[in-house]
Amino acid sequence: MNGWKLVYEEFTPQQEALREALCTLGNGYFASRGAAPESSAGGIHYPGTYIAGCYNRLQTQIAGETIENESLVNAPNWLALTFRIEDGDWFDVGNVNVLSYHQELDIKKAILTRTIRFCDPDGRHTRVDQRRLVSIEHPHLAALETSIHAEDWSGSIEVRSALDGQVVNAGVERYRDLNKRHLNSGTAESIADDTFWLEVETSQSRIRIVQAATTRLWRGEQCITPAPAVDQAEGYIAHHYQTRLDPQQPLRIEKIVALYTSRDHAISESGLEARKSVSEAAAFDALASRHIMVWKQLWQRFDFDIEHDDPEEEEKTERTLRLHILHLIQTTSPHVMDLDVGVPARGLHGEAYRGHIFWDELFVFPLFNLRMPEITRALLCYRYRRLNEARRAAQAAGYRGALYPWQSGSNGREESQRLHLNPKSGNWIPDNSRLQRHINAAMVYNIWQYYQVTRDMEFLSFYGAEMILEIARFWSSFTSYNDESKRYEILNVMGPDEYHDAYPHDRRPGLNNNAYTNLMMVWVLLRALELRDILPSQRFSELCQTLNLSKEEFAHWDEVSRRMIIPFHKDEHDNDIISQFEGYEKLTEFDWQDYRKKYGDIQRLDRILEADDDTPNRYKVSKQADVLMLFYLFSSEELGELFAHLGYPFEYETIPRNIDYYLKRTSHGSTLSRVVNSWVLARSNRPGAWPLFAEALDSDVADIQGGTTSEGIHTGAMAGTVDLIQRCFTGIETRGDVLWLNPSLPEGLSSLTLTIRYRQHVLGFHITPSRVRISTEPCAEKPIKIGIVTDVNEFQPGEVREFQL
Amino acid sequence: MNGWKLVYEEFTPQQEALREALCTLGNGYFASRGAAPESSAGGIHYPGTYIAGCYNRLQTQIAGETIENESLVNAPNWLALTFRIEDGDWFDVGNVNVLSYHQELDIKKAILTRTIRFCDPDGRHTRVDQRRLVSIEHPHLAALETSIHAEDWSGSIEVRSALDGQVVNAGVERYRDLNKRHLNSGTAESIADDTFWLEVETSQSRIRIVQAATTRLWRGEQCITPAPAVDQAEGYIAHHYQTRLDPQQPLRIEKIVALYTSRDHAISESGLEARKSVSEAAAFDALASRHIMVWKQLWQRFDFDIEHDDPEEEEKTERTLRLHILHLIQTTSPHVMDLDVGVPARGLHGEAYRGHIFWDELFVFPLFNLRMPEITRALLCYRYRRLNEARRAAQAAGYRGALYPWQSGSNGREESQRLHLNPKSGNWIPDNSRLQRHINAAMVYNIWQYYQVTRDMEFLSFYGAEMILEIARFWSSFTSYNDESKRYEILNVMGPDEYHDAYPHDRRPGLNNNAYTNLMMVWVLLRALELRDILPSQRFSELCQTLNLSKEEFAHWDEVSRRMIIPFHKDEHDNDIISQFEGYEKLTEFDWQDYRKKYGDIQRLDRILEADDDTPNRYKVSKQADVLMLFYLFSSEELGELFAHLGYPFEYETIPRNIDYYLKRTSHGSTLSRVVNSWVLARSNRPGAWPLFAEALDSDVADIQGGTTSEGIHTGAMAGTVDLIQRCFTGIETRGDVLWLNPSLPEGLSSLTLTIRYRQHVLGFHITPSRVRISTEPCAEKPIKIGIVTDVNEFQPGEVREFQL
Repeated sequence: MNGWKLVYEEFTPQQEALREALCTLGNGYFASRGAAPESSAGGIHYPGTYIAGCYNRLQTQIAGETIENESLVNAPNWLALTFRIEDGDWFDVGNVNVLSYHQELDIKKAILTRTIRFCDPDGRHTRVDQRRLVSIEHPHLAALETSIHAEDWSGSIEVRSALDGQVVNAGVERYRDLNKRHLNSGTAESIADDTFWLEVETSQSRIRIVQAATTRLWRGEQCITPAPAVDQAEGYIAHHYQTRLDPQQPLRIEKIVALYTSRDHAISESGLEARKSVSEAAAFDALASRHIMVWKQLWQRFDFDIEHDDPEEEEKTERTLRLHILHLIQTTSPHVMDLDVGVPARGLHGEAYRGHIFWDELFVFPLFNLRMPEITRALLCYRYRRLNEARRAAQAAGYRGALYPWQSGSNGREESQRLHLNPKSGNWIPDNSRLQRHINAAMVYNIWQYYQVTRDMEFLSFYGAEMILEIARFWSSFTSYNDESKRYEILNVMGPDEYHDAYPHDRRPGLNNNAYTNLMMVWVLLRALELRDILPSQRFSELCQTLNLSKEEFAHWDEVSRRMIIPFHKDEHDNDIISQFEGYEKLTEFDWQDYRKKYGDIQRLDRILEADDDTPNRYKVSKQADVLMLFYLFSSEELGELFAHLGYPFEYETIPRNIDYYLKRTSHGSTLSRVVNSWVLARSNRPGAWPLFAEALDSDVADIQGGTTSEGIHTGAMAGTVDLIQRCFTGIETRGDVLWLNPSLPEGLSSLTLTIRYRQHVLGFHITPSRVRISTEPCAEKPIKIGIVTDVNEFQPGEVREFQL
Repeated sequence: MNGWKLVYEEFTPQQEALREALCTLGNGYFASRGAAPESSAGGIHYPGTYIAGCYNRLQTQIAGETIENESLVNAPNWLALTFRIEDGDWFDVGNVNVLSYHQELDIKKAILTRTIRFCDPDGRHTRVDQRRLVSIEHPHLAALETSIHAEDWSGSIEVRSALDGQVVNAGVERYRDLNKRHLNSGTAESIADDTFWLEVETSQSRIRIVQAATTRLWRGEQCITPAPAVDQAEGYIAHHYQTRLDPQQPLRIEKIVALYTSRDHAISESGLEARKSVSEAAAFDALASRHIMVWKQLWQRFDFDIEHDDPEEEEKTERTLRLHILHLIQTTSPHVMDLDVGVPARGLHGEAYRGHIFWDELFVFPLFNLRMPEITRALLCYRYRRLNEARRAAQAAGYRGALYPWQSGSNGREESQRLHLNPKSGNWIPDNSRLQRHINAAMVYNIWQYYQVTRDMEFLSFYGAEMILEIARFWSSFTSYNDESKRYEILNVMGPDEYHDAYPHDRRPGLNNNAYTNLMMVWVLLRALELRDILPSQRFSELCQTLNLSKEEFAHWDEVSRRMIIPFHKDEHDNDIISQFEGYEKLTEFDWQDYRKKYGDIQRLDRILEADDDTPNRYKVSKQADVLMLFYLFSSEELGELFAHLGYPFEYETIPRNIDYYLKRTSHGSTLSRVVNSWVLARSNRPGAWPLFAEALDSDVADIQGGTTSEGIHTGAMAGTVDLIQRCFTGIETRGDVLWLNPSLPEGLSSLTLTIRYRQHVLGFHITPSRVRISTEPCAEKPIKIGIVTDVNEFQPGEVREFQL
């Protein structure tokens, strides 16, 4: 065990799904699931973002929609490879006596290794070693190597290698009654002793997926692939190879698979490319060595190093953070730079949320911005391409500008469910999550952060600015003026906290003046106004003309940005607290102790209360950070400026006071919540940060929500924990033309080393509780400004300087 | 007539094809042909670069290829709209007496208008007005408005509006015996009185193309679309509308069409998107006014202004250059920024070369670099995506690195024909044009120019550098060392001049040490070596590791770059001339006078000689600039440095001497040749420049090659002529971190005004023979350096300064 390996030494069927999710391999182009070789469920997860993700069939009927929708699609299973001895049954882990089991995900190499020793009912002892990779060098290739050792027997063995398009989506229990089948079968063909291919088409979006596979059998250095028997069915093709095995020499089987789709660039026809690609592919070892080399380069860009007083804590933390980085890179690797994909909330690792794109980007992009901002740029373009759909949505809702959806489907349409199932009560209950309009502010925040780090004027000019202006316009049309308060307000929305979607006893969904939404809206308007000074004047005039933006409209934005309402109420010490929304203070305090006693785990309090015919809407209780998000996204300096702009008092004490108030009233029913809380605590209360950080770190590896990880890892939480190390403990902030640094290591952490990129410079940081060492790599770029706590220093390329904290 | 309109006042069937090509409308996403409404040949030219362009069927059989290839595809004809009066024959321009005809391409607005007045066999007088646009705002939309006026009759009229997928590729006469049909039919459906849609699939690449059309009939302000009769056939659907017409009020028909393909980004399914898009589309006038607005913005970026002593010459020159700019923007508009497309040699305007991508980029990119470099970036990415195919080609040919093809097909494979037809002799003769390896140098030149203008480090780091290094590697593996000359050499290639592909009496194709190729190769190696100083060190190490580049390999490149051979021979005055290739001096002088007398137009001397059982390989005669390309691509300063680096003498006189020598021996059998010659003359011999420039300007508008324009406009020549104004007459050169300016206006030209972009700055130039005024727009960028003739000046944003020349 070290900080680079995730190891399981026992085969426990109960843990299978979790292990599968955690050991998924991918390369941004496709991700394969860590299924057992005999399992028909193991398939290539096709990037969900390509696919028309959306309602399932049942909900479609309820909502009266006419499009036959489909979920995230499991592409045909390329891992399908198994064997049988002496015409017996096909290998089934349930029917043999497992003597030992070892599964190891090498995080550094992104290679999964498994070894199983078993004794079959006939008393034969056999060992199977398997290695697997999804090439990070060649986005279209994946490879599986299987060695079978007959320990104490000789005899015939039949190997079956298949491409299986009969896969269904069955990874999420509560979706299982819904439409599971998303592939229509196309051509399948055996074209050589070692090669066959399979074509399928997704049922609604009609994307053709072609896989071509070569399967070669080796005895030592000798390739012994015999002529196969071909087995074909609808959406399925397999080669069956008959050979002999004895204890002298194991049988080694290499299976290389190429996957192309009809959406790929630079192709003639996907089947042609898949066959060409697999025919030219290198053998497993050669593929692996190039794969490892590219991963090594990625680790040079993405790794970090910490020293903790507790060595075990240090190793565990490093391992988990690296596992998170691995999964994030696998989901959105450099290969996405040329794809039209977003960041699915659950990665490409499971079927939950059906591949839809939420606001998780807000937690994911900061990591990429400072390591490989080219990835962020590509993912922001995914949103830009859907700007027209967002305009359509705003117009349909009666507003101007662009309204991005809470759950974004393939073409950018809103795909939030209108009903969801409470598994606890069996009830289908209305789901108003589409009222989370704040996702539009997240979009602007993401563009702005990317621009601050890179100063990429081309992106801002041609894509970012148009989105910002249209979103600002949406917000301004979404506000109304209140004659009583003499301020602008935003009605009928939901904040990030999903426990509150309406006032108690009010049948209409929506809340008024959610503080987070209102303040983000002000911030968005300010950024839109700032564009006037930043954009080249030629481009700015073009945009004003194209969008029909007048001076009056800018003046109105300015006015709204100064007179937006933020609700407050008093806490028990009669101090001002930012109200999560207007009227929050009238809600009932929740009896946490009572419910904990009664239910134990109360993370999903909404389900518990609904089953009791009650609702969290009645209580001062949050599923996740809402007001606290503000302290996560903004430094106290920036918040101070925002409040001053609005004419509200703000003092540093506002922050710990609000944190204290809301933390007590949060159930952490979202993995993101722990990230945010850990973040805000680290900035306001140093000793308190580490335990919550450690807990956030466990979200997926320990599956703390009890089953959600096997439905897909949590990209937001994974990135957020890495970003805690990267931006929170270091205090990195990119504002104006300065990279600010304000380190504050949690107790126990004695040093933190990492390398980031900022405006084409490569910067090394080594931080201890008392000192920070900064080095800049030699390059041809102009000097940059780095602010340490409060002092701004100009750095030339190729400098090393140290500062006392 | 003014500098913004192309007008035809006569309907002459013989001129139809030429007019069609010149009046083509497009928006970078699709281009529609200017066909008469009654013509079934008028179709949307689908961007050929999307399609597996390649050999025709006959050549495929000869070459023994197994892929069933397809040409540039004509998408279904959306213009199909016609009418008949009182159940008579469908309108046919051949069966009526045309009283007047007016066709006008408004270059500023990119709208085509036509009016035809005719008298039918029954003596009725009718006028038809038509406007047409392909929206530059909405890449998926096109619109056709038709008004029919009964001048002296009343009666019933039947309007037929269709989407016609039965189109064939028949635009190039000599291809007509080959496979013409490239569309398989799919679903077609009438979904409302005014709406129907058609789906087809390309036969080899299997791209689905869906068009949805609305057809609405108007009488004044009233929409009177009646219930239609639906006419359907394989790959064809039409609505037939019956109504009445009388002289009081014309009938107006609006047809709006949306086109989506299965390759599009941000879609669910192409049919769904096409239907949604057309159902939401604005009416013709609203579409037109937005279309005109966006074109106005484009003209602000791309226009120029000249003053010539001869006002007629001035108007004609401006009009033709603007027509060229129009067609270039239509072929590669801002919409290509998110598409995987290249620049087809014949635009999207005709079927010649079947949409293949050649080296025309070399002439096209300089225009875009200084106006909208984001377009160049996208087009360079098209090449980057095909780097793997270029690696494959190098390996297959026994070399290292990357070998880009002379004619690039959809997935980047070599698609140069192996045989071509001489229409003069009827012979199929071997075609060795794939030996034009110099296209690989053009690739590097293009990347470098783009980088010099933009300093786009992201592009260079992630895409450009890898291509440059791999191409340098190819060149270095392609050279051999000659023990006798003690220099490196390049054997068996063709230079740009296609008249020479072998030594006379040698059956093997290829020439040795083509001076252009050798010198470009040296320049490429120098750029590859320079990357060591430019790239961020982190990225440079990654690339060296990934490409397995050693110090020794760089050292070898350095060595080759210093010791490459350049052949010379003596002219009649015993001066050194750069030999087009080794042994050029041994060729026979050509009797130009004799052949001109005998054949008149001898532009295509190759065909004349082949028909006479002779070959241009025997003569000192060039189809197009070869050695002279060097003076086109490099300033005398840069050439001087290159020759010095190689240890060869170079003096300023070398340039006019070589120009004089080769111009006498060139037949200008290529439209590009005039651009190059005009360019080099303008730099060395001012008075001589304008006539050749004016001739190059005529290439397409006057169809000087006698029929080639109707097979597609010449993108390289069109861009080259604009670039003569932009870079040659101004002397703009981007080298190091300086924008050099060295104006030299040809005689007759009294001023030149244009606006360019350089490193995010917007710069205005006003140039007269004696002065230059430079203005920089206010912006947030750092100052730039502008060199005027020999002095470098630093410019802040927002300055205006004037210099004496």
